[in-house]
This record gives sequence, structure tokens and C-alpha cells, in this order.
Amino acid sequence: MSLTSEQKAEIDALRANPNQTLRTVSDGMEKHLYSAIPVLDHGFVRVIDYMGDDAAICQAARVSYGKGTKSVQNDEGLIRYLMRHWHSTPFEMCEIKLHVKLPVFVARQWIRHRTANVNEYSARYSILDREFYIPAPEHINAQSVVNNQGRGDVLQGDEAKRVLEILKADSARCYDNYEAMISDDGQAGLARELARMNLPANIYTQWYWKVDLHNLLHFLRLRADAHAQYEIRVYADAICNVVADWVPAAYRAFEDYRMGAVTMSAQMMDCLRRMLKGETVEQENSGLSAREWREFQDMLST
Amino acid sequence: MSLTSEQKAEIDALRANPNQTLRTVSDGMEKHLYSAIPVLDHGFVRVIDYMGDDAAICQAARVSYGKGTKSVQNDEGLIRYLMRHWHSTPFEMCEIKLHVKLPVFVARQWIRHRTANVNEYSARYSILDREFYIPAPEHINAQSVVNNQGRGDVLQGDEAKRVLEILKADSARCYDNYEAMISDDGQAGLARELARMNLPANIYTQWYWKVDLHNLLHFLRLRADAHAQYEIRVYADAICNVVADWVPAAYRAFEDYRMGAVTMSAQMMDCLRRMLKGETVEQENSGLSAREWREFQDMLST
Amino acid sequence: MSLTSEQKAEIDALRANPNQTLRTVSDGMEKHLYSAIPVLDHGFVRVIDYMGDDAAICQAARVSYGKGTKSVQNDEGLIRYLMRHWHSTPFEMCEIKLHVKLPVFVARQWIRHRTANVNEYSARYSILDREFYIPAPEHINAQSVVNNQGRGDVLQGDEAKRVLEILKADSARCYDNYEAMISDDGQAGLARELARMNLPANIYTQWYWKVDLHNLLHFLRLRADAHAQYEIRVYADAICNVVADWVPAAYRAFEDYRMGAVTMSAQMMDCLRRMLKGETVEQENSGLSAREWREFQDMLST
Amino acid sequence: MSLTSEQKAEIDALRANPNQTLRTVSDGMEKHLYSAIPVLDHGFVRVIDYMGDDAAICQAARVSYGKGTKSVQNDEGLIRYLMRHWHSTPFEMCEIKLHVKLPVFVARQWIRHRTANVNEYSARYSILDREFYIPAPEHINAQSVVNNQGRGDVLQGDEAKRVLEILKADSARCYDNYEAMISDDGQAGLARELARMNLPANIYTQWYWKVDLHNLLHFLRLRADAHAQYEIRVYADAICNVVADWVPAAYRAFEDYRMGAVTMSAQMMDCLRRMLKGETVEQENSGLSAREWREFQDMLST
Repeated sequence: MSLTSEQKAEIDALRANPNQTLRTVSDGMEKHLYSAIPVLDHGFVRVIDYMGDDAAICQAARVSYGKGTKSVQNDEGLIRYLMRHWHSTPFEMCEIKLHVKLPVFVARQWIRHRTANVNEYSARYSILDREFYIPAPEHINAQSVVNNQGRGDVLQGDEAKRVLEILKADSARCYDNYEAMISDDGQAGLARELARMNLPANIYTQWYWKVDLHNLLHFLRLRADAHAQYEIRVYADAICNVVADWVPAAYRAFEDYRMGAVTMSAQMMDCLRRMLKGETVEQENSGLSAREWREFQDMLST
Repeated sequence: MSLTSEQKAEIDALRANPNQTLRTVSDGMEKHLYSAIPVLDHGFVRVIDYMGDDAAICQAARVSYGKGTKSVQNDEGLIRYLMRHWHSTPFEMCEIKLHVKLPVFVARQWIRHRTANVNEYSARYSILDREFYIPAPEHINAQSVVNNQGRGDVLQGDEAKRVLEILKADSARCYDNYEAMISDDGQAGLARELARMNLPANIYTQWYWKVDLHNLLHFLRLRADAHAQYEIRVYADAICNVVADWVPAAYRAFEDYRMGAVTMSAQMMDCLRRMLKGETVEQENSGLSAREWREFQDMLST
Repeated sequence: MSLTSEQKAEIDALRANPNQTLRTVSDGMEKHLYSAIPVLDHGFVRVIDYMGDDAAICQAARVSYGKGTKSVQNDEGLIRYLMRHWHSTPFEMCEIKLHVKLPVFVARQWIRHRTANVNEYSARYSILDREFYIPAPEHINAQSVVNNQGRGDVLQGDEAKRVLEILKADSARCYDNYEAMISDDGQAGLARELARMNLPANIYTQWYWKVDLHNLLHFLRLRADAHAQYEIRVYADAICNVVADWVPAAYRAFEDYRMGAVTMSAQMMDCLRRMLKGETVEQENSGLSAREWREFQDMLST
Repeated sequence: MSLTSEQKAEIDALRANPNQTLRTVSDGMEKHLYSAIPVLDHGFVRVIDYMGDDAAICQAARVSYGKGTKSVQNDEGLIRYLMRHWHSTPFEMCEIKLHVKLPVFVARQWIRHRTANVNEYSARYSILDREFYIPAPEHINAQSVVNNQGRGDVLQGDEAKRVLEILKADSARCYDNYEAMISDDGQAGLARELARMNLPANIYTQWYWKVDLHNLLHFLRLRADAHAQYEIRVYADAICNVVADWVPAAYRAFEDYRMGAVTMSAQMMDCLRRMLKGETVEQENSGLSAREWREFQDMLST
């Protein structure tokens, strides 16, 4: 990612002017505000605004549960209890607004999470910049042979090189032609809303994305997962770091009860109970399908 | 509304400690933070937190429309354009969190607005206070004879007095019995989740309610309307005053293009065009039903 | 629940007239349509309409995953895979519309599930019937001494009797006064929107509730759970039976991967792996708090 | 649009097998079920399922308003009243499920309507077909010189020809390279989730889209509007025809109170009242900005 000097100056100006507020302030977030965290080759994530912190989660829970929550020794204990028992509404009381620059094919996955507010750069009004995602060689993988939607081994040598050349050449040509079509130099200039259709899905777009903490954590659980596509996972990872600074107790609970947690089916629990009694359970007598048995084995190994 | 001295001290403490932040600050909102605005006899509205201001609306719009919005002279012009043309997503970029104390029958109307985050006081966990809404005599009206859901004239003399006596006596008796049932003095004490069913709908509850500005304005348009029930309208009115201080330009646009605006049907527009040409249009030759004609006449008179 | 003869006749008439359709039909649902399933003393659940079946879930998944799903041997295997891996959108492709009659305090819990469409009987327009939920003696419990929001032992003898008498007497008196206030016999008649505030939370209301299968299953997971309040759980149980007839494969997967499943935290998984290797793990060396250890032990016992 | 003979056979088979149902049936919709309505050069809209009809809207309204609605003479009158007064929940009681094939840049606009259920063809799992939207010559317009986001005049002669050639050539080359990269003929074959990034935004995708009638009408109001981009408007127009057959009374009310209706601001209403009293109002003494005055004049002319 390369910020223009104009953009850097704008960020510096925004960070130079603290204001007074009576609101809850998260010191961990203040250090992130406005700065651009680089992601992929031209993308970034920037925190534009936030509302609430760990204490705000507890405060909302205490409105709901009244004196019942006073018995919990401390805020972290309460937050862990809420997370463990899927009491999601107190987490909805925190909100974050991000400015994200990302390739269109990543944006298309991202937008499937519907419970958020979005303002995307409009290519009907404005001209997109000449910026395309070109993967680094170590992220150019073959189609997985075991998983219909995953990646397999990294492509080597000539094959990787050929892929890179294609992506670069097609991006450049498509953008050249986009520019040529909209140019009003000696011609009328094609409507932008039409010209954009010539741009491939690795072009960068940007948006403001505002979401509450509960829905954000749900997004992160799916997109920071090892099975998520690499190109969206790096955004999720960057946001995870921000959340860890913003609401540290909630983030630790999220790691323990969501990211690092495992859901066992009724049949798996039955196997487990038998195994703990010393019984030898094999797939044949497990009640699990071959696929589920494999998933079960994966859960039990580190 | 009567705050306990404990509550007042808490509000004073919260307001005494400004923090430094790099976020956008709305001075108009800072003066409201935490203070309780009295509504009805025991209710209130308190601003607990907020995100964004008029400038944040414009900033989000400019992300969407890029350089296209730079031609608009100023922020207020842009906000008015967005409101007039129903571009709602920039308004979603502002958020507010309120603490509201309100009668249960008002809460039941309010919650029908689904696009918001809510933490309500739980009467399964905790004991509700002995606080009931008893209308002031000037708000005790007869059923309307022209409108199936509205109020007619104010009740007079003995009839109003009898209503007040009933409401007070039934509230008191139901609460006495609620207390008696949950008491564990010499008995086991009924489960709170059961005992609460004896409480009438004028008892007060409270919640944290968090909503974005677009959905808040939609709520206000319906609930600050002259046809809304008085007891929810006073909450909407109190919130309108807060919003006017928070995002003054957006609020002015809301008054002009929503609250004070009128939607004319295709047939009404046809009548209007004929009238402006000098034609005399009566219900008979208007193409409108009697009811619509009446509504049309109301729109055209002040 | 007692249906009037008029209501019975209406249901019979609706069930007597089959139509031809080209849409997907679920035979299991057709037998439920319009009939009232009794719940509590005056409540019911009725299926008014539905869209889709098990095959429709698979069809939607196959649009998403294309030829990738053809390798799955059969529909049930595909549905189990989707449920296990939290692929929720295919389940959203089924929809159900219910007519529910329920006490107001149950309705207030229910409505917290926001992703649904609701039309509730309006007590601003219309007069509520004299129908109140009075619990059966075996469902009148003391407040739990171990769980802030739960029920403990069933109340016995005089205490239970006293509770019943209070609930009946207060309901009757409040309703008598409601009727007296709205009566226009010799007086103006109080506005209905005001009079309703005198009615306690055990009065019955009714609504149409329309929801997609994914969100319905989420509702059922929380409300058919053993920790849910009895009075909403019986509604959830009734709906579970309907869903089992409507989409049998999806319902079986829901039982195995949701209702009967268990989520283990990162720390619990660590304990488990150590236990399976033969190590003796106690709370002290588990990394779990006392409370979590108790929950963990509960998971491992039947 | 060209359906394969396999697809035609599938549609014929689906239409050949009527089932019996006790549900509400809309005859107008039955004739549409499964058939593909062609849109653009390769796209289509197909009705896959539906729930409810005009009568179902009224039935839901009658649950809400009880006996209050019985005074309305007929269903159409009730529906018009509901639409006029923005009582939206009864319209949410109808649901439709569509199968849509559409260019990616249209899909990106469409998905901004968040209150719907979507299953889109996944290019992570499956290979996209070689089908691209190439506009007909009469839909190749210049950028508007008066409207930042609109189209101006149709491009003529050589310029239009050049645009067409570019779009065709770039689509073809990008697809050839997409195929070459994923091919596992003599090489590993690039992961599909990566290869798709080379495809331009005029490639066709497809999805199942399920939405309630209220949100569908909101979508249609924006997307069937004269200012919507042509390429999404033709989809909206096709769906309008379907809705007119499905819920004819609701659709007529939609035309009168939404599509053909006009919202006048407070200032515009003031001007109007003065004009109807015979006063000559000019922009200077109107209280409207130049832009609003122009919009006002447009509303008043046919």
C-alpha cells in the first residue's frame, strides 16, 4: 500500500487534534484512529470512529440483568459469561466504523454479511484508480484436490510466472481500455456506469463499513478462520488486532469461546463419553459418517 | 421523574471527567451526555454515547460519490440533497445510544422498530420498581368517534376522576401482590419470571437503545407525528430536540423533507396540475375516493 | 384453548378446499395447515402458510456451489453438511407463517428475535378478550436459589393456592375495570390506547409471525432449550413438532448439530485432549474457573 | 438469453406436475412459475416460489386492526389505505423467491438491498460460464453532462463501434486466460478462487433471491425509476410485470402511491398553497434553491 503524500498529511492532521469528550474512551483504539494498516499490495484498513469499550458491554448487561450481575466479581468475568452463553445483545452496544480499501472480489464476499452499514465508492459517479491486486508468488496456489473450494499447493516456477503475467497484462489492458472509453478527449466519452463493466475483479474499491461488535465478531469468526480465502483473511486478521486493542477482555473471550472453540454434535459427544470411560471407539461403531469421523479426529488432535 | 440522589451523583461524576479523543466530537451532544431529560411522570431519555456528526454524513457521502460531491458548495447543501433524494446510507454512519425509562405499553410500540440494538431490564432476573404511569388529567381522552385508533375529547369531571382512581388503585394492588408473591419472608417466594405476569402495562421498564441516524429519523417521523399516541410522542419529541443539537443540518433537512413534507399520489398530482391551470376540481371529478379527497384537502390547507 | 364454533368452522372450510399449485409441496405441512395446536391454557400455534421443503434447501445450495455439490450422494447428506458447517443461507430459502396466540409476557420475550415479520393484534384499535394465562399448579415454582433467572422447586399447598388466587383475582378485577373504562354506556368511554395500560402481562394477545427457517431454528435453539422459561418453551416445542414434519432432514440435522451439540472452549478442548491421553485433570490444573469446570463436567456426563 | 435444451426440459417437467395444496394460490403467479423471462442478452428472471396474495395482505391487516378493518368495504380499499398510510407490515406477509441471472456489475448494485435472502453461484467452487453482457448499440451512451451519475446521448458510429469491440475483445481474452489458468491439462491448475479475479464485471452470475413484498416494492421503486441504471431497470421492469400478476391490487396501489407519487417538501407545499390562492410564485420568492425550484417545476409539469 502506498499512501499519497496528500493522504499522509490528512491523516497526520486528523491525529494532531485531540478534542475533549465526556464519552467513554478506549485508549487502545485512540492509537489506531485514522492510521492506515496495510493489507495486501494496495489495500488498507483504517479505524474512522468507534463507540464503547469493555466497560460499555458490562454496563449494558447490567441494565438487563440488574442487580443479578453485581455478584460477578469483575468485568472480565461477566464478559466471559456473556460470550460463553451467547448473550449477544451487550456486545451489540459497541460499534466501529472502518475505512477499507480492498479488491472487488474480496468486497463481494464481505458484503454477504448484511448486518452492517456501507458506503462504497461509486463507479457510476467517479473514476476508479489504476490499482489491481496481484498476488505475491507465495500466494498463487493450485486448486485443492481434496476440498472443492480450497487451495492446494503453491504453484512453482513457470506456471506461477505465467499466472502473474496474465493477471498483470489483463489488468493493464482492461484499465487502458476503460480510460480510453471514458476519455472525452476528441469524443463524447462513454458513461462511467457502462465503462466500469470492463474492469476485472482484482481492481481495488473502497468503502466505509460500520458494524456492531457482535456482528463484527461473527464476521471475524468466519473470515479469520483457516478455511477462509487468504485475501479476505488478511483483512480479518488486521481487524482482529484492532479489536484486541479496543476491547481486550471481549477479544480474549472471543478467542477462547469462538475462535479456539469446537462444536461437537450429539453423536460426537456420545463417542467422547464412551472414550472417556475407556471404550475403544472406531468409525465403524461411532455412528459418524466417514467425513464426520475425520472431522472428529481433527478436533481431538492438536 | 425523580432521580435518586445516588443517580444524580452518578450523572455528576460522569459529566465531571472529560477525556481526550481524536474522534469527531459534536459539541451540541456533549452538553446532553448522561443527563436525564424527564418524560411523562417517571420516565426519561438519556444520551449515553454517540458516533459522528453532520460532517461525518458528508464524509461518508464523499467516499461514495468521490469527486462528484466536491461541486456541492457546502456540507448543508449536500445533506439536503441526500435527504431529498432518499440517499439513506450516509445517515446510517451516525449512531446514538440512549438510556430510556418508559411504560411497558410504550415499550411494546417502540420495539416494533426492529433495526436497533436493545438491552432491556429483565424482570426474570431482577425486581421491577413500584413506578407506574398515571396520565395527567389533560391527557385522559375518550375514544375518538372518527378515527378507530385515536383519541377524542378530554374526559371531564367525574369520569376522568374515576379513570384516575381505577388506574392508581389497580396499579397499587397488582404491585402489592407482586411483592407479596416474590417475598421470601416466611415462604419460598414465587419465581420472578412468573410473578411479573401480574403487573399491568403502565409499569415502567428501562432499556439501552442504540440505533443509527437513518433508522432513528424513520422512528421519529412516525412517532413524533401528530397521529402517534401521545405517550410515545413525548419521547420522540424529546429525542428530536437532542438530534437537533447533535446534527443540526441533518435535522433541518429532516424537518423540511420528512416531517413537514407531503406525499401526493398520482391522482392527487393530476388534480393539482388541473387546479393550477385554473380548472375547478371537485371530489366528483377528481378520481379520488371521498376519504382521499378529504386527505387531499387537508394537505392543501395550512 | 377453546376455539369458538365460528373459528372451528372457518378452519374446516379452509381445510376443505385444496387448490392446484406448481410449487413445491410438503405433505407433512399440508396436514398441519390452519389447524390450531393448543399451547398453555388459551394459546395456540397455527400454520397459515409455508414456502419450500428439504429439497428447496438443497436446490438453493446447488445454485451456490454448482457442480461441487453433485458429489454429495443425497439430499440428507448435503443438508447435514450445510448445518454442520454453518452454511446458513440455503436454510433461509424456506419460510413459514404462523398465527400464534400467547400471553403478553411471552410475546415480549419472543419479539426480541428481530429478524421476522410480525402483525400483532392492536389494542389501540380493538378490544382485547378476557383471556388470561393462569399457570397449572405444577408450573408454579419458587425463585431458584442457584440461578438468578430460573425457577426452583414447585410451590406447595397454601402458597401455590395463594398465588393462583392472586393471579385470578387481579386479572379479573383489572379486566372488569378495563371494560368499565372503555364502556360508552352512559359515558364517553376512555380511549382504548389508554385503557389497555390497566391490563396485566398474562393477558393473551395474538399475531401473525413470519420467519425463514434459519432464523426459526435459531429461535428454537434458544427457546426450546431446557433453560428457557417454561411458558415460551411450550410454544417452541409445538413449533419443533411442526418443523420435524415440514423439513424432516433439516430437523434431524438441527437436533444433532444444534440442540444436542455442545460447544467446548479452547481450554476445555485442551483438558479433553489431556484426558484422552490418560492424564487426570482436576479443576485446579484445568485452566478453567470453578463455574466453567462445573459446566464442563455437565457436558461430559450424560 | 438462450436456454439449453436441458434447461428447457427441466422447466417443462416442473410445469407439468401440479400438486394439491391447502395454501393460498395466486393464479396469476402460477402461470409464471419456473419459466424464464429474458432480460438483457443472456440474463433472466424466474419465479421459483411465492407465498401469499392480495387476500393474505388483508388477512394480516385484519389480525392487527381487528374489527376496525371490517368497516372497509373491500380488500382493494383496505390495501390502498395500508399503502397510502405506510402500514408496511401486512405487505411483509407475502414472499417471493426468484432465480436471477445477471451481470456482476448489476449484482453489485442489487445486493445493496440488504433485507433479502441470497444464494449466489460461487466461483470459489465452480467454474463460471463464458457469458458476458455486451450492450446493444442503442444502450451505449455518453457520460451525462448535467448529471454526475447518468447517461447522456447515445454514442454514434465509430465511437459506439469501438466501445463494442473493446468490450467483446477484453471479455473474450480475459475468459480465455481464466480458462487457461484453471486448466489442469498438463499443469496443476490455478485455484478457482484466484482465477476468478481475472474476469470483468460484465460476466454473468446467478442467484436465488428471496424477499418479502414490502422490501421488494421498495427495491422496485428505486430500481424501476427512470434515474436507475438501464441494466438494472430492465430487471426491475420484468419483476414489476410479475408482481402485477401476483398481487394486482397491491401493485395498483404501488403505482398510485409510490411510483407515480411525488413528495413535496415543507417549502414546496408553502409555494403550492400560495399558487392555489392565485399568487405568482417565482424562484426568487419561493424559499427554494435553484435546484429545488427546477425539481418543483418538473413535478408540476406532466
